[in-house]
Amino acid sequence: MINKLVANIKKTNAPIVVGLDPMLNYIPEHVQKRAFAEFGETLEGAAEAIWQFNKEIVDKTYDLIPAVKPQIAMYEQFGIPGLVAFKKTVDYCKEKGLVVIGDIKRGDIGSTSAAYAVGHVGRVQVGSKTYVPFDEDFVTVNPYLGSDGVDPFVKVCKEENKGIFVLVKTSNPSSGEFQDRLVDGKPLYEIVGEKVAEWGASHMGDDYSYVGAVVGATYPEMGKVLRKVMPKAYILVPGYGAQGGKGKDLVHFFNEDGLGAIVNSSRGIIAAYKQEAYAKFGAENFGEASRAAVVDMVEDIRESLEQR
Amino acid sequence: MINKLVANIKKTNAPIVVGLDPMLNYIPEHVQKRAFAEFGETLEGAAEAIWQFNKEIVDKTYDLIPAVKPQIAMYEQFGIPGLVAFKKTVDYCKEKGLVVIGDIKRGDIGSTSAAYAVGHVGRVQVGSKTYVPFDEDFVTVNPYLGSDGVDPFVKVCKEENKGIFVLVKTSNPSSGEFQDRLVDGKPLYEIVGEKVAEWGASHMGDDYSYVGAVVGATYPEMGKVLRKVMPKAYILVPGYGAQGGKGKDLVHFFNEDGLGAIVNSSRGIIAAYKQEAYAKFGAENFGEASRAAVVDMVEDIRESLEQR
Repeated sequence: MINKLVANIKKTNAPIVVGLDPMLNYIPEHVQKRAFAEFGETLEGAAEAIWQFNKEIVDKTYDLIPAVKPQIAMYEQFGIPGLVAFKKTVDYCKEKGLVVIGDIKRGDIGSTSAAYAVGHVGRVQVGSKTYVPFDEDFVTVNPYLGSDGVDPFVKVCKEENKGIFVLVKTSNPSSGEFQDRLVDGKPLYEIVGEKVAEWGASHMGDDYSYVGAVVGATYPEMGKVLRKVMPKAYILVPGYGAQGGKGKDLVHFFNEDGLGAIVNSSRGIIAAYKQEAYAKFGAENFGEASRAAVVDMVEDIRESLEQR
Repeated sequence: MINKLVANIKKTNAPIVVGLDPMLNYIPEHVQKRAFAEFGETLEGAAEAIWQFNKEIVDKTYDLIPAVKPQIAMYEQFGIPGLVAFKKTVDYCKEKGLVVIGDIKRGDIGSTSAAYAVGHVGRVQVGSKTYVPFDEDFVTVNPYLGSDGVDPFVKVCKEENKGIFVLVKTSNPSSGEFQDRLVDGKPLYEIVGEKVAEWGASHMGDDYSYVGAVVGATYPEMGKVLRKVMPKAYILVPGYGAQGGKGKDLVHFFNEDGLGAIVNSSRGIIAAYKQEAYAKFGAENFGEASRAAVVDMVEDIRESLEQR
């Protein structure tokens, strides 16, 4: 699957991922109204609005992008119907040839981490049958519990040719509270990065590992260091656009081959129609606005990479 | 809700919580067979087996215990039907007067953490209506992302009189990989513990905070230190029994008032019928075996507390 991700990136020449994080207030009123007309102002209605919104954005962008990253929290907040919309979104994106990164940030120990792994990137046994419950291609994993929490994911990923992105240095302002603490003069995120390289060595694709890392665009200097600490890890980079990261901040996350990083934008793409730059499309054509925002984002990153 | 937890603990005189983590191989064959006869060897069949298993254990133990802790991974691995069984379990336990701690170990940033909080301990807005999607009383939260990840949970918990338990020092063998790293001579878990005390000060119940901590029974010496670092935090203690923790290891997690800690056992209670000590009940009477295991666990902890 890391090979497919790299192939998709080369094919589209776009090292980006669209974050499908549909807050209800991102969804144009006409989409919400149509869904509520059918299902009422219910969890089912919210889930239908999310699904219709996602489908339109995917339909208008899938040929330009290698991957999507649905943030499960935005679905889980609508309970069971929300999670049904999550699953529909995963399935639809895979039909469209996209790599799906489930942003689930799970992490537990032993058999519990194994259960998350089985549920999201593996298959679960029921009597004599097996099922693939959520079936993402990659998931994000929280490392706080150490190898006991990560190993079960790697084990399942080996069986399924799937992968994970481990949180190393997150994009938020308070990420330094614990992640930047110095241990023998070395920040914790670097120690986590070293472990990512170690975990990743056991599950390699052609050029990159199935074990990647999350490093926020908002911390480019740290990205530079971490790029060297984990040379074979794909870096998933959140924080571009709405959170403040810019194209020129991103160059250090890439290797010399122009690969090794995939930059996420969520709000900046899916709610593009709300920005001044894309207001001309209008809420009715929100999908076209998203497409234009994808084109601009790819251009921004490409230019920055050419100028480095 | 922290006041209700304390009241339930005083009423039952049992500072324990039963972990409802139903692996399929814990569930007696007759329960599985009945469920598969109705729903086939499907995700729905697995979910039905889990639900029937949980219901029997709750029916046989609810009068002896203050709280349960369903581990959501064990449900999520069976996809949507598994999560329906999770929700049914939460609702049923609340009907029985139990405090429900959703062991979800979520954690993200800003609006994403807020979405998890809303979904699990809050209410979500859909148009002019609000819904309570999963409706646990407490949830466990991963602190790796810092205050940005925890604050949204605390905010929702204040609105709802609900609470969280933040992972501080987990019970697994590799928990020290990152959590024990020394920062200026102080282990990271202690720094996280200090933040728990700080977060908790803003949301206090009568005697204890709505912000508690997870500290593994397998690390009693660290529990002793953390007890002092977070005097007002309830400590949720996993790792008793199957993971190796014993009653005498637990005394340091409690305050002088005999309160301040709640000890979890999962496999040791719910799969008691598989242990030699309770084999006499037989798989048919697995609920009675669980009841006997609860009685013994409470006795073990009570004796240890009396002898300290």
